[in-house]
Amino acid sequence: MREVVIKALLVDPSNNSPVVLLKDRASRKALPIWIGDSEAISIAFGLQNEDFPRPLTHVLMKKMIEYLDAKIDKVIIKAVQDGTFFASIYVRDAQGDVMEFDARPSDSLALSLRSGCQIFVADDVFSSEAIESPFAEEDEFHDFVDDDLDLGEFRKWKEWAEAESEES
Amino acid sequence: MREVVIKALLVDPSNNSPVVLLKDRASRKALPIWIGDSEAISIAFGLQNEDFPRPLTHVLMKKMIEYLDAKIDKVIIKAVQDGTFFASIYVRDAQGDVMEFDARPSDSLALSLRSGCQIFVADDVFSSEAIESPFAEEDEFHDFVDDDLDLGEFRKWKEWAEAESEES
Repeated sequence: MREVVIKALLVDPSNNSPVVLLKDRASRKALPIWIGDSEAISIAFGLQNEDFPRPLTHVLMKKMIEYLDAKIDKVIIKAVQDGTFFASIYVRDAQGDVMEFDARPSDSLALSLRSGCQIFVADDVFSSEAIESPFAEEDEFHDFVDDDLDLGEFRKWKEWAEAESEES
Repeated sequence: MREVVIKALLVDPSNNSPVVLLKDRASRKALPIWIGDSEAISIAFGLQNEDFPRPLTHVLMKKMIEYLDAKIDKVIIKAVQDGTFFASIYVRDAQGDVMEFDARPSDSLALSLRSGCQIFVADDVFSSEAIESPFAEEDEFHDFVDDDLDLGEFRKWKEWAEAESEES
């Protein structure tokens, strides 16, 4: 297994879909995972440590888990089939017992950002799906998202990415 | 406070936005609440008791809460301000203690469907925002959603609603 970090949240111009880039801590390779719009917004707000005016779903999940004396232990991207990724979220309860929950990568990543837990990718998934990271090692994530990202901004950002791709 | 049931999931043709209609159990009145697309999909699958091929966020939340020996006690639509509704989700832990969580109505309704808990609306919210229900008392919810609703179908359904509104 490899530990990865969320390196960028981008828009794939071919289908206007948000992509999370999971960068291997130990190499220059990164795993792109396509996610939905609302999950992208949740991840974007989590990355920027910003408060959304209303409680977002994954913030709510984290609060409930913490109220119940549990925590998110880690998340693992475990498998890929026909371009669909499968993940697990591990929840540690007050007794220290850990339960694995089948989850989509988007929920797993959004929750990991709120809880600060580590993100892992299974070796076979990483070796078959990873690409060379397009970013320099020293680049910080915040170079790749709008500083004042909100729902409206996110749409504009997507439209901009689309326009850019049509021009090129 | 009034107990309501989710009576219909519709599309508002003026802005192509999904609307949940919360019908008062004790009268013919209903409260419309506008929600996001992904929340509408989650609610639609919850209403139809259908499994989505991947674990949806609110199903995951419910599973985690249950694993931690807790349950969703009830949800209440508590306030409205400038057309934005504010809700609370009440979680009962293993000791019987109940905690209130500030939440959006869409998360509250999606979770209530998974847990089977009751939905309430504060009297002042209901009296200021409720409309006459456009449906007959005996109508069942499933008359108003597509039987084979999936992500693609949901989009088609929205487009259909939009086309209908342009024609009329």
